[in-house]
Amino acid sequence: MADTLTLDGLIAVLPADTVVTDPDIIAGYRQDRALDPEAGLPMAVVRARSTADVVAAVRWCAANRVPIIPRGAGTGLSGGSGGVVGAITISTERMREIEIDPVMRVAVVQPGLLNAEVKSAVKQHGLWYPPDPSSFEICSIGGNAATNAGGLCCVKYGVTTDYVLGMQVVLADGRAIRLGGPRLKDSAGLSLTKLFVGSEGTLGIITELTLRLLPPQPPASTVVASFASVHHATEAVLAITDQIRPAMLEFMDAVAINAVEDHLKMGLDRTAGAMLVAQSDAPGAAAADEIAIITAAFEANEASEVFSTDDVAEGEAFTVARRMAIPAVEKLGSLLLEDVGVPLPSLPALVDGIAAIAQRRDVMISVIAHAGDGNTHPLIVFDPTDTEQAARADLAFGEVMDLAIGLGGTITGEHGVGRLKKAWLPDQVGEDVMDVSRRIKDALDPDHLLNPGTMF
Amino acid sequence: MADTLTLDGLIAVLPADTVVTDPDIIAGYRQDRALDPEAGLPMAVVRARSTADVVAAVRWCAANRVPIIPRGAGTGLSGGSGGVVGAITISTERMREIEIDPVMRVAVVQPGLLNAEVKSAVKQHGLWYPPDPSSFEICSIGGNAATNAGGLCCVKYGVTTDYVLGMQVVLADGRAIRLGGPRLKDSAGLSLTKLFVGSEGTLGIITELTLRLLPPQPPASTVVASFASVHHATEAVLAITDQIRPAMLEFMDAVAINAVEDHLKMGLDRTAGAMLVAQSDAPGAAAADEIAIITAAFEANEASEVFSTDDVAEGEAFTVARRMAIPAVEKLGSLLLEDVGVPLPSLPALVDGIAAIAQRRDVMISVIAHAGDGNTHPLIVFDPTDTEQAARADLAFGEVMDLAIGLGGTITGEHGVGRLKKAWLPDQVGEDVMDVSRRIKDALDPDHLLNPGTMF
Ligand SMILES: Cc1cc2nc3c(=O)[nH]c(=O)nc-3n(C[C@H](O)[C@H](O)[C@H](O)COP(=O)(O)OP(=O)(O)OC[C@H]3O[C@@H](n4cnc5c(N)ncnc54)[C@H](O)[C@@H]3O)c2cc1C
Ligand SMILES: Cc1cc2nc3c(=O)[nH]c(=O)nc-3n(C[C@H](O)[C@H](O)[C@H](O)COP(=O)(O)OP(=O)(O)OC[C@H]3O[C@@H](n4cnc5c(N)ncnc54)[C@H](O)[C@@H]3O)c2cc1C
Repeated sequence: MADTLTLDGLIAVLPADTVVTDPDIIAGYRQDRALDPEAGLPMAVVRARSTADVVAAVRWCAANRVPIIPRGAGTGLSGGSGGVVGAITISTERMREIEIDPVMRVAVVQPGLLNAEVKSAVKQHGLWYPPDPSSFEICSIGGNAATNAGGLCCVKYGVTTDYVLGMQVVLADGRAIRLGGPRLKDSAGLSLTKLFVGSEGTLGIITELTLRLLPPQPPASTVVASFASVHHATEAVLAITDQIRPAMLEFMDAVAINAVEDHLKMGLDRTAGAMLVAQSDAPGAAAADEIAIITAAFEANEASEVFSTDDVAEGEAFTVARRMAIPAVEKLGSLLLEDVGVPLPSLPALVDGIAAIAQRRDVMISVIAHAGDGNTHPLIVFDPTDTEQAARADLAFGEVMDLAIGLGGTITGEHGVGRLKKAWLPDQVGEDVMDVSRRIKDALDPDHLLNPGTMF
Repeated sequence: MADTLTLDGLIAVLPADTVVTDPDIIAGYRQDRALDPEAGLPMAVVRARSTADVVAAVRWCAANRVPIIPRGAGTGLSGGSGGVVGAITISTERMREIEIDPVMRVAVVQPGLLNAEVKSAVKQHGLWYPPDPSSFEICSIGGNAATNAGGLCCVKYGVTTDYVLGMQVVLADGRAIRLGGPRLKDSAGLSLTKLFVGSEGTLGIITELTLRLLPPQPPASTVVASFASVHHATEAVLAITDQIRPAMLEFMDAVAINAVEDHLKMGLDRTAGAMLVAQSDAPGAAAADEIAIITAAFEANEASEVFSTDDVAEGEAFTVARRMAIPAVEKLGSLLLEDVGVPLPSLPALVDGIAAIAQRRDVMISVIAHAGDGNTHPLIVFDPTDTEQAARADLAFGEVMDLAIGLGGTITGEHGVGRLKKAWLPDQVGEDVMDVSRRIKDALDPDHLLNPGTMF
C-alpha cells in the first residue's frame, strides 16, 4: 500500500453516500459481539447497495492492496468481522432484497437481510426457513452463510449449509461469480457452494444467496424440566438422543437460569442445577410418543419439575428464555464466549471438565448448550478491571478448547474460528489440514486481502 | 515419465499380491458402467488393502509422475473410473472394514464396502444409512462419496454429502489427512469434507468415511399409478411436491415400463404413457394424510390405475421395478446415459424437450427420473453397429444437456461429470467457476496426477 493512498479513488467508483469516512460512525464497525479489545479501526466502511458496489470496492482494494473485512450485522462471536487498521470494511447492511418462488420453494436473498426478516418473508408464502441462531433477530443471512450458523432447531433440521443451494460471491480479484442454483440435486463440478459456506469471508464476499425452503414446521410441543445437577441433565440428553431426534434440546446451567430469571421473572427454578428445554414437532399422534420418550428420560434422571405443553406460545416463552441466556449472563461481567462441541457421548465429560477448569482458574464459567448436538457455549465471566482475573479467564478460554479437542471435539460448532480461536485451529485439525486450507486460500486470494487475521 | 519405467518399484513398496499386471485381469478395470469405448487399459491395478497401501502407491506414482485413477466398484455412469493408458488404477475393493458406534450413531467405514453392505451392517444395530442409489447392491460407499451419490429416498432425506461427517483422504503427494469427524456440528476451518465429497477422485483418494446414521426409517406406504401421458405424470409430481416431501417419488416412461415388465412380469400397465411410484414414511396417522394428498394429485391428473398399499414388501416390489429400469432398458441396445436435473417447475418442459430431441434425431430416448427432485435419467438407446444412428445418439446426448442448461438446470444431478460430460461443464457453470475450480485443483494436485480427464 502506497503511503500516499487516499480514498478518493474508492469514493469515485461508488455511488454517493456509500463510503463512510466519519470516524464516529466507523467506530461502530470496529468490533463484533465478541467485543475484542484488540480490534482496530478500519480506514473506511463501504455500505454497499448492490453486487456492483461490492465489485467496485473490491477491485479498488485489490488494485491498491488494501485488506477487506466483509461484515454483515456484526453479531459474530469470534471477532471475524472486527476491524483491522488500514483495511476497508465492506458492510452488506443495505443489501436487503428478497425474491421468493413458492413453487420452486426457494428464496433468492441479498446478504444484508436479517435472518428473522427472511423467516417472516417466506412465512407469508406459507414456507419455512429453518436455521434459527439465537441471534436470529439481529444477525444477517449473509453472516449466517459465512459462518455456517446453527441454532436451536438444527438438531433435527440441520445447519445453514443444508439450506444454501447457491450463491453469488465476489472473489478477491473483484470477479462476481455464481455457484449452484435453485436445483435440489447438482453434482456438476467441485462442491464450491459448500466450500464458500462457512469460509468466514476469507474466500469471497457473498452478495446473494439461493435458499431452500421447507413447508411450515408443524406446531411443536414443549417439555421443560429442572435437574439437581448438570450431570443429571446431560445424561437425560443422551437418553433422549439415543431414541429420537427432537426438534429442540437446549441446556442452561444454574448461572444462566438465574441470570435469565433476573430479567424475565417467569418463575424458573432458581435452585436447579440445570434446566433442559425440549421440543417435538412430529406430526399428529407421533408428537405425543416423542413427548412421552422425552418425559421418561427426564424422570429417569431425577428431573424435579417436568412441565409439558402443547401450547405453542407457552413453549415459545421457554425458547425465548434460552435465547436470552447470552445477553443475560453478559450483564454479570465481561464475557469470553466459547462454542466448543463434542461427540454426544462426551457431553457429560465436557461439562465436568469445564467445571474443573473454572475451579482451577477461579473464574465463573456458565454453560448453555444446543445440547442435542453436543454444541456448548461455556461463557467465561470476568471483571475486566481485575487484570489478574482477566488473565486467568484468558487461560481458561484456551483450556476449554484444549479440553474439547482432547475429547475428539471441535473448538467451534457454529460461531466460526474468527480471530479469537485461530491459534487453536491447528491443534484441532492438524498441520496437514492447515496446509490444504492455506493452499486453497492462496489459490483464491493470493494477496490475502480478504479478512486477514481470520481463520488463517 | 521415464521411458524405462518399470513397475518393480511399485511392487516393492506394496504387499505381495497387491499390484495386478495380468492384462486379462486389468481389462476388467478398463471401463465403468458407462462402457465408454474410448477408455484405455491402465498400466497396472493396485488392489489396496489399507490406507498405507494407498499412500505407498500414490507416493510411487507421484515420484514417477504416473497418473492415478481412483476406482471403487466401477458402477459409475460418467466414465470417471475408466482407465487411462499409462496410468495406475487404485482400486478400493479390498478395503472393507466397518466399525459402528450405536451411541454416537456413526459408522466408520472403508471405501470398498458396497452401499448395501453398509446399510445392512448398521441395520443390525437398529440404525439406518439413508442414501440409496438404485445401484446400492453393486456400488461402493467410497464411490458414493466421490460422486455425491443420490438415490430414491433423497427427495426427503438428502444425498450422500448430508451423511458424510468426516473422512480420511490421501492427497496427490501421498499424505493421508483426516477431515471432520464424528461431530454433528463443526465450523472449524474451511468445509473441506464437503469439498472432497463429489470431487470424483480429482483431489484425493478417500480411504475412510465417518457416516452419520439415523434411527430406522418408519415403514413406508406406497402409491403407484399409471398415466395416459408423460405430461400428466410430471404435472402430478408438481402437485405433490407443492404440498409435501414424499419419501420417494419416482417416474418411468412407457419404454421403461415395458422393458421392466419384459423382465419382471409383475403386471405393469404396458399401455400407460408413464408411471409414478410414491412413498410416504410419515409416522403414524400422518402417513395416511400424505397418501391421501398423493392419491388426490394422481387422480387430479387423470391417473388410470391408482394402487396403494401399506404392505412394505408389496411396496418394495415397485421400488425394485423402478431400480430395474436402467438394466432393463440397456437390453434394448447400447445406452448413452444422461443425468440431467432441472428446477422442479421445469420438469414438464424438460420431458417435452427431450421428446422433441428424440424425434429430431430419430433415436429412442427413454426417461426415468427421481422426479421428486427434478433429476431425470434420459436413456438414449442406439444400435452400436449402426454408425449413423450412433452419431445421431451422440448429438442427442449433447442436446439433452444443452436443454437442461437452458432450463436453469444441471448436466448431472448425481452421477458426476466424469469424462463423458466434461465438455458441457463450462457451459453450465461458466468460465469463472471453471477457473476457480482449476485453481483449487492446481493447488492440491499441481501435476494433475489424480484422475486426469475427469471433470477438468
Ligand atoms: C446473543 C447471541 C446469540 C447467538 N446465537 C447464535 C446461535 O445460536 N448460533 C449461531 O450460529 N450463532 C449465534 N450467534 C453468533 C452470530 O449471530 C452468528 O455467527 C451470525 O451468523 C453472524 O451474522 P452477522 O451478520 O452478525 O455476521 P458478522 O458478525 O458481521 O460476520 C461474521 C463473519 O462472517 C463474515 N461475513 C459476514 N457477512 C458476509 C458476507 N456477506 N460474505 C462473506 N463473509 C461475510 C464476516 O467477515 C465474519 O467473519 C449469536 C450471537 C449473539 C450476539
Ligand atoms: C443400474 C445403475 C443404477 C444407478 N443408479 C444410481 C442412482 O440412483 N444414484 C446415483 O447417484 N448413482 C447411480 N448409479 C451410478 C453409480 O452407481 C454411482 O455413481 C456410484 O456412486 C459409483 O460408485 P462406484 O463404487 O461404482 O464408483 P466408481 O464407478 O468406481 O467411481 C466413480 C467415481 O468416483 C471415483 N472414486 C471411486 N472411489 C473413490 C475413492 N475411494 N476415492 C476417491 N474417488 C473415488 C472414481 O475415480 C470415479 O470418478 C447407478 C449405476 C448403475 C449401473
